[in-house]
Amino acid sequence: MGKFCFGIDVGGTTVKLGLFTAQGDLLEKWEIKTRVENGGINIIPDVAETVKAKIEEKNIDKNEIIGIGLGVPGPVKEDGTILGTANLGWGVFNVVKELSDSTGLTVKATNDANAAALGEMWKGGGQGYKNIVLVTLGTGIGGGIILNGQVLSGTNGASGEIGHIHINDEETEACGCGNIGCLEQVSSATGIVRIGKKVLKNSEKPSILRNKEISAKAVFDAVKEDDELAIQIAEIFGEYLGKAMAIIATVVDPQVYVIGGGVSKAGDIIFKFTDKYFQKHAFSANRNIKFALAKLGNDAGIYGAAKLIIG
Amino acid sequence: MGKFCFGIDVGGTTVKLGLFTAQGDLLEKWEIKTRVENGGINIIPDVAETVKAKIEEKNIDKNEIIGIGLGVPGPVKEDGTILGTANLGWGVFNVVKELSDSTGLTVKATNDANAAALGEMWKGGGQGYKNIVLVTLGTGIGGGIILNGQVLSGTNGASGEIGHIHINDEETEACGCGNIGCLEQVSSATGIVRIGKKVLKNSEKPSILRNKEISAKAVFDAVKEDDELAIQIAEIFGEYLGKAMAIIATVVDPQVYVIGGGVSKAGDIIFKFTDKYFQKHAFSANRNIKFALAKLGNDAGIYGAAKLIIG
Repeated sequence: MGKFCFGIDVGGTTVKLGLFTAQGDLLEKWEIKTRVENGGINIIPDVAETVKAKIEEKNIDKNEIIGIGLGVPGPVKEDGTILGTANLGWGVFNVVKELSDSTGLTVKATNDANAAALGEMWKGGGQGYKNIVLVTLGTGIGGGIILNGQVLSGTNGASGEIGHIHINDEETEACGCGNIGCLEQVSSATGIVRIGKKVLKNSEKPSILRNKEISAKAVFDAVKEDDELAIQIAEIFGEYLGKAMAIIATVVDPQVYVIGGGVSKAGDIIFKFTDKYFQKHAFSANRNIKFALAKLGNDAGIYGAAKLIIG
Repeated sequence: MGKFCFGIDVGGTTVKLGLFTAQGDLLEKWEIKTRVENGGINIIPDVAETVKAKIEEKNIDKNEIIGIGLGVPGPVKEDGTILGTANLGWGVFNVVKELSDSTGLTVKATNDANAAALGEMWKGGGQGYKNIVLVTLGTGIGGGIILNGQVLSGTNGASGEIGHIHINDEETEACGCGNIGCLEQVSSATGIVRIGKKVLKNSEKPSILRNKEISAKAVFDAVKEDDELAIQIAEIFGEYLGKAMAIIATVVDPQVYVIGGGVSKAGDIIFKFTDKYFQKHAFSANRNIKFALAKLGNDAGIYGAAKLIIG
């Protein structure tokens, strides 16, 4: 019977690693640098080495280890095939096979957004639920979908790419993905800044936000001060995000949306702006869906990766 | 080892029943009337009775029957709980338990749209795929989602309610569901008629469609004759449906869309109008998704119900 497992979250700058008990208690966490040079050829060998070193350091019997769960920043097929991960320099290869061969341990892998969603379901904002959609509002918008407690991977490992839902027919600028009118362009941290600048430019009204660096945090701080233009920006953020969550609900019918990423640090106030638009556009059967803030921050990925292997 | 099973599709007017081999060959199909009066209290007893009569008629040993799969026109939870099905008069009860108790057979149930999707995956337009979204363009728009060969039920049995995706910000009239701007309002058979009347009214141009009963069929027949206004109507149909399918793809990342229902009888020509809008709005990872027409017609439900129990 396995007593331990590893939850690993491979990011573009660092690899986060956690040693967990089989019950999901985080015993220790550490980081190593992600060596993206040379097509990221060193990343998995580095991971294997630090895992083996930790096993030795802790004097753990290999038979007591359930395995390694891995989250990676790009599409992963169910068999562990990576389909190219731009910011790690990776091409197409089987990450599960490579890490399993070099450690002798069972390995399971998924997309980092799915891992984070699984982590939040298990130990974070989605605790107590089995059907959750994690919406990560950062530089972009990521999504992870868990149904019946299982990660929804999709055909190309590209489910939950909700930042690229077409949501705004009026948009004229292109998203990073090349399309026009994506959710990410209006409701991500960078989207809020972009919309914020437009709102300030198109108005003569006074605002706390004038003559300072606009950020999602500055906008929501100003909202708390009843700043009229900040409220206008937050309404636009909420209108598109609320509408997108209503649309997603008609497809997968979750129990709860968990909102994470930098923007979620503004707190429950974001729901004040998403709720009314969600309710306006939601199908009747979905109107009782709950909303919660993510709780695990940067640890969501390692928790979810651990849960992937614990099952 | 089971040799036979029943696939049953409960509709608002008739209950369709099929006796299948365990390999999925349809041996016999028949129908009974759906007695919706008195809160639909007779429907399941009638089903039980006709199933028992068929078993006797065919002289089948009960041990040779795998069980009964059931599709019903409304949300069904995974445990078989019906959450109220307006057009059968049903309130809340467990349909699996009731039919199982009265037949002594294993029963599994799902929403009729999910059953149809499972049927099309197994023996119809989605054959060879495991991740499909069935879009049924009829009076309304229904949807059924199959992932990894399994029905996606959702929390309230309300996944795949894609007819009620909010897709049209310009809409002024209300959908049957009470919301404004649903996909069903523009791309269903009735939606095409509604849009068609508007297009004809707002134009002075000649059209084959003038002075005749407009229907989805008439519109696509006129499209085949290069009728300018019919093409304009088909463009609107395709724009919204194509965009909706691009949005759904970012959420569940299917391999194939299978299009069924009355509108699909127009044939492959409908893809001429949906394809360009799908490609315009689809996330890069989803652009290779296939499109196919449904093949099983009204039998999709009984096939899918049978597959539900065969597994």
